[in-house]
Amino acid sequence: MSGEDAPAQQQNAEEQKQQQQQQQQETKTPAESPKTESKPDPPPTSASTEDAAATPAPAAEKAAEEDTFSYRALVLTGYGGYDKVKLQVKKGKPAIKSGEVMVRVKMCGLNFADLMARQGLYDRLPSPPVTPGMDCSGIIEAVGEDVKDRKVGDNVLVLNRSGLWQEVVVVAATHTFLMPEGMSFEEAAAIPVNYITAYMMLFDFGHLRPNQSVLIHMAAGGVGIAATQLCKTVNDVTVFGTASASKHEVISQGGVTHPIDYRTRDYVEEVRKISPKGLDIVLDPLGGSDTHKGYNLLKPMGKLISYGAANMLAGQKKNLFAVAKTWYQQFSVHTLSLIQGNRSVCGFHLGYLDSETELISQAMTAILDLYRQGRIKPRIDSTYHLEQVGDAMRRMQERNNIGKIILTTEPMKEEEKKEEAKKDEEKKKDDKKKDKKKDEAKKDEKKEEKEETKKEEKKVDEKEEAKKEEN
Amino acid sequence: MSGEDAPAQQQNAEEQKQQQQQQQQETKTPAESPKTESKPDPPPTSASTEDAAATPAPAAEKAAEEDTFSYRALVLTGYGGYDKVKLQVKKGKPAIKSGEVMVRVKMCGLNFADLMARQGLYDRLPSPPVTPGMDCSGIIEAVGEDVKDRKVGDNVLVLNRSGLWQEVVVVAATHTFLMPEGMSFEEAAAIPVNYITAYMMLFDFGHLRPNQSVLIHMAAGGVGIAATQLCKTVNDVTVFGTASASKHEVISQGGVTHPIDYRTRDYVEEVRKISPKGLDIVLDPLGGSDTHKGYNLLKPMGKLISYGAANMLAGQKKNLFAVAKTWYQQFSVHTLSLIQGNRSVCGFHLGYLDSETELISQAMTAILDLYRQGRIKPRIDSTYHLEQVGDAMRRMQERNNIGKIILTTEPMKEEEKKEEAKKDEEKKKDDKKKDKKKDEAKKDEKKEEKEETKKEEKKVDEKEEAKKEEN
Repeated sequence: MSGEDAPAQQQNAEEQKQQQQQQQQETKTPAESPKTESKPDPPPTSASTEDAAATPAPAAEKAAEEDTFSYRALVLTGYGGYDKVKLQVKKGKPAIKSGEVMVRVKMCGLNFADLMARQGLYDRLPSPPVTPGMDCSGIIEAVGEDVKDRKVGDNVLVLNRSGLWQEVVVVAATHTFLMPEGMSFEEAAAIPVNYITAYMMLFDFGHLRPNQSVLIHMAAGGVGIAATQLCKTVNDVTVFGTASASKHEVISQGGVTHPIDYRTRDYVEEVRKISPKGLDIVLDPLGGSDTHKGYNLLKPMGKLISYGAANMLAGQKKNLFAVAKTWYQQFSVHTLSLIQGNRSVCGFHLGYLDSETELISQAMTAILDLYRQGRIKPRIDSTYHLEQVGDAMRRMQERNNIGKIILTTEPMKEEEKKEEAKKDEEKKKDDKKKDKKKDEAKKDEKKEEKEETKKEEKKVDEKEEAKKEEN
Repeated sequence: MSGEDAPAQQQNAEEQKQQQQQQQQETKTPAESPKTESKPDPPPTSASTEDAAATPAPAAEKAAEEDTFSYRALVLTGYGGYDKVKLQVKKGKPAIKSGEVMVRVKMCGLNFADLMARQGLYDRLPSPPVTPGMDCSGIIEAVGEDVKDRKVGDNVLVLNRSGLWQEVVVVAATHTFLMPEGMSFEEAAAIPVNYITAYMMLFDFGHLRPNQSVLIHMAAGGVGIAATQLCKTVNDVTVFGTASASKHEVISQGGVTHPIDYRTRDYVEEVRKISPKGLDIVLDPLGGSDTHKGYNLLKPMGKLISYGAANMLAGQKKNLFAVAKTWYQQFSVHTLSLIQGNRSVCGFHLGYLDSETELISQAMTAILDLYRQGRIKPRIDSTYHLEQVGDAMRRMQERNNIGKIILTTEPMKEEEKKEEAKKDEEKKKDDKKKDKKKDEAKKDEKKEEKEETKKEEKKVDEKEEAKKEEN
């Protein structure tokens, strides 16, 4: 159910107001037009709710309830910059099919794939308009037929191919997992994508064992921090982690043995200095030339695990040059090279595993056990309101986060909204200035390129003439 | 120490005789010219030997011993057919460096890499003349300095990059492993290459777990049988094994769940019928188009492990067409394809791991533990004398073996030698007939090709003329 599908008829004053806001909002960025509609009633969570759910309401009441049901949702309205994700209101109670549950969402997780998706670089998200979001946490509000191991009121983590950045989601019960006691909703939303990705890469493809060495790129990112913690659950694993210098203290405390500032150092050299024979596992979210470097750093029996092409992301909007360059440099390997090196190259993306319920659930069981034992703990970088999704995405894309960025469905307070609006104006001005500068820089580059080309052409001409003379 | 390096001076009548035989032999195939020299005295194996080794003999005696020391060795004299491996006598006691041991060899193992090497297709064997052989078993006859965990009289399995097809070998002590009680020398020679290869592929790269499915090509071969047995040490693993129909009963008893006759059936179809989702692990010793097929059979999180290019071997001598075709069809893969499929492609060859003492020794420890527990047991296909190495290689290359082919250093009896000589004459005649037939077939093919080309050219001409007319 997308924003487009919501029934158009208006039921009451409250809804009229909401729709007006929605229309206004379509022409503005979310942070600019903080929504003022009251939040839908919070779901009843006591045991009495269960009884209510079990005893069906009379048909008329039910229909009324379905009509007045509405909830806020983030919707990707087209490919492009941060402002393409808009906050909308969806109306009508979503249908729950057999095997499904409805979850009242508390917190959502932001992932790198969401940034790719916004630029049209991620083929697992249906075409816009569509609600992004691959992980969230919340409380079960209703269960469909044939769902036996979930009940209304259960606190759950949710993993889904997309569609979780909204206040209410309907998903297969098998895509939900019971939250262990003591886990916060923020932590729960930070777990599914990052920890399952890190777990399956390190322990299934990587087969990590004691005394091995691992290179973790973007070690302060969501997957990076999860991977570091999981490495630490195995004895004497050496972790090399790349991150900018300002994050080194935090990632060292988190378990990175050798933090490397990739902005000022050549990470290949740094690794070789400490581990001349190379590495057992390289986790590579970057793609392009970094995959080649990672491959060459492998020891015999080493595994390179490629799980993204973050190098394709350069700037807020799709950068064709970065995409083409990353694509062009993308790694390919011949089995004879693998045989002679005794190496393994693996590709991983959770987005393509959404039907592998059993694999996912095995990994999640192991992860939640480690959480219960206190051996892993998600690090929350920051929490944003749905209205601030643009800021949240910017923080991730500019690599300013250390840990997971969370979106909360908790509505913003009025004062906060006003402040946000001010900040947003300033940011917009900044962006415009930046764009201008970029355009100028591009023009300069083009000029230089033209001049270079002219020079080259001249050289070639001169050479050819010289040849002719020789002949 | 190769045959070329042996000192040329003759010490006594016995040696003179040996050298004459050796010279004769150089012009004949080993099986044709069974050697008659007496076997060097067997090494003393009692505890008293240890004392003898510890107390150095007077210098003069020692020198005499070194001069009279000789042993038979198989030597690859050049690249080509089975007759390129000749039985020679090496003279002079090999020097033992620090960390090395001398082993009196009892049994040697034959491996696929030896067949490739004979045709010049295996770059880990030094150039001829050279003694091939990657695994053997025997008794330690002397130990070098700094060897603390081996002593004279120890029964050992040996794994080495090459050089083990001879009666006496000197290797790094770390390349030897103590034989468990109750293990025969045949079994010991059948273990190193096949079981370490199968073990590291299935458990390190493959990370095999309960309920998974594995495709094993050449399931009746040495690695195939080892891999099947190792699969059976994990609960509920489904093994698909390719082999010709006559071997199905044996491999089924050995643990193959679904034997497939690759000569009459399309193995891809057969696997899909039983396991429509595909496989968790494919072990691929074939290369070429079979690697592509294996890759396409993988489930999400599936692993393809390429460990050879047996498809390159077609016939006794190097078949340039088969080599070029296999090479041309050799698999290469792009990381984006791996990411979208959540797949892994690995390359394995023990020959490139010879300096990885720790990895090898971990695997061997686990394998010998499984042997002690009675969970694996090498299957010996047949045992040949060193003189019969040509027959042994032929049996393997024509895929007639079920299990490991062993070479014994035990000398042949006179009657056996006579019989062998007869058989060999017949085989030579057969080979000549086969070659003639092949030549004729080739001529016919060429004729057909020429006619085809002519026809094609005619067609093109006609088409072009038709076009001209149209214009």
